[in-house]
Amino acid sequence: MPEFFKESSSVEAVNSRIAPDTNPRFKEVMTSLVAHLHAFVKDVHLTQQEWEVAIDFLTRTGQICSEERQEFILLSDTLGVSMLVDAINNRRPGGATENTVMGPFHVVGAPEREMGAHISFDGKGERCLFVGRVIDLHGNPVAGARLDVWSDNSEGFYDVQQPDIQPRWNNRGIFTTGEDGQYNFVGIKPVSYPIPHDGPVGKMLAALGRGPYRPAHMHFMVTAEGFQKLVTHTFVGDDAYITCDAVFGVKQTLVAPFERINGVETIWRSSFDFVLTPIDVSP
Amino acid sequence: MPEFFKESSSVEAVNSRIAPDTNPRFKEVMTSLVAHLHAFVKDVHLTQQEWEVAIDFLTRTGQICSEERQEFILLSDTLGVSMLVDAINNRRPGGATENTVMGPFHVVGAPEREMGAHISFDGKGERCLFVGRVIDLHGNPVAGARLDVWSDNSEGFYDVQQPDIQPRWNNRGIFTTGEDGQYNFVGIKPVSYPIPHDGPVGKMLAALGRGPYRPAHMHFMVTAEGFQKLVTHTFVGDDAYITCDAVFGVKQTLVAPFERINGVETIWRSSFDFVLTPIDVSP
Repeated sequence: MPEFFKESSSVEAVNSRIAPDTNPRFKEVMTSLVAHLHAFVKDVHLTQQEWEVAIDFLTRTGQICSEERQEFILLSDTLGVSMLVDAINNRRPGGATENTVMGPFHVVGAPEREMGAHISFDGKGERCLFVGRVIDLHGNPVAGARLDVWSDNSEGFYDVQQPDIQPRWNNRGIFTTGEDGQYNFVGIKPVSYPIPHDGPVGKMLAALGRGPYRPAHMHFMVTAEGFQKLVTHTFVGDDAYITCDAVFGVKQTLVAPFERINGVETIWRSSFDFVLTPIDVSP
Repeated sequence: MPEFFKESSSVEAVNSRIAPDTNPRFKEVMTSLVAHLHAFVKDVHLTQQEWEVAIDFLTRTGQICSEERQEFILLSDTLGVSMLVDAINNRRPGGATENTVMGPFHVVGAPEREMGAHISFDGKGERCLFVGRVIDLHGNPVAGARLDVWSDNSEGFYDVQQPDIQPRWNNRGIFTTGEDGQYNFVGIKPVSYPIPHDGPVGKMLAALGRGPYRPAHMHFMVTAEGFQKLVTHTFVGDDAYITCDAVFGVKQTLVAPFERINGVETIWRSSFDFVLTPIDVSP
């Protein structure tokens, strides 16, 4: 007897159709997706009208995507899926610096700069010295570690969001550690900013009573031979949005000190050590 | 202490953000969606690269949608979600005719026709007499029942897919039963056809070793005062695709006899009784 569709065996009806020679990993992923999707529909007893709303939402989410905008990534971010995928794929032993989401604003090819250099060129914002070390799990300095850093400007925009404004590469730079593993550079104290929220995802957030803001953070991508790539932020702890990051990027261990100092121009200092995990070490 | 994101409590991190005054039903649906979505990601240990493929797939699915094409409905159909939503929302007592998916080709406003009329005007295909009764759960005829019927033509296209071809309303019509509850009309024996498969959903089906075909079927929407709306098909049982309908629409009870008869022009006869369920009766 053929297996026709029944509510009680809906998952089997769909998954039994997958051909035997299907790529095993694709089969595994799709089989699980169908099971969870059907369980969701059954759990909430989704109505026909709600299904229509969902189809319309997904369609509008796809249609607003463009070269400059990725609304499905925003959807993934705001439902915690991006952070979950990042967490699952970057499990590290205690003491190692944790990952967080890359975000859409990294640019390949930022200028290499001398240690101690300034990266903020528009004269806006509050100057901040970023300082610390790149070390291994035993506290030994990592020489030749590359720190690719980027942040928004004092108005909450990354340079790629305002391509007509000069100079280029504002609030970006790449630094390489010496034998002491130390780094330091001068940027600005980053500011909080909203993710794009004039589309379907923004409407979803509003309907959930959630805001679109991300708390202020500095991005770091730290790479060194023999170590796992670290993609992370440091967060300004007293930011108003620290406990309600729209994309759930904050981890307790990534909240960094931002201390006032008495320099004439540089008035903040943020010290943070990045602890790298060897390639072949897992928790 | 604020609840920062952790892999182990990712669902709570997201769902605890929902504001207390959120619409309770929206909260229920979203809370369940997040739980199932995260469980899926954890179950399959989704990789960063697979996540990127998923984002790209969803984006392309949205972008191919147009006035004439709804790829997200195709996705829902081919994952069995459309049938599941239909099943959950149309549970009926034993003996009642079962629902199946409406499909995208129904058109409001088809012509009302006299009982016994022909609905196929292009002279193509094999003529078929559709005959039977509309009855209640006790076998009593339902008078004044309205049967809105539609099928593809002998090439596998509905009239709305070939808008330039005359006459209009080919293979469509509306019939109303008299006191005896009987109906009969002459159309064609329907043929199997593929759903649109030149987009992302077609590629997904191919990767799963699944085909895009639907087995031949005649659509019926039967409405009568005091009864639940019945949206269903009758299927040609010996169709090559009867056990592999791309959208899982086939139910055992909806497979109808299609018998050869010796008429000069009408060479098939399909007899099927539609058993309606009173509005206030559930299984």
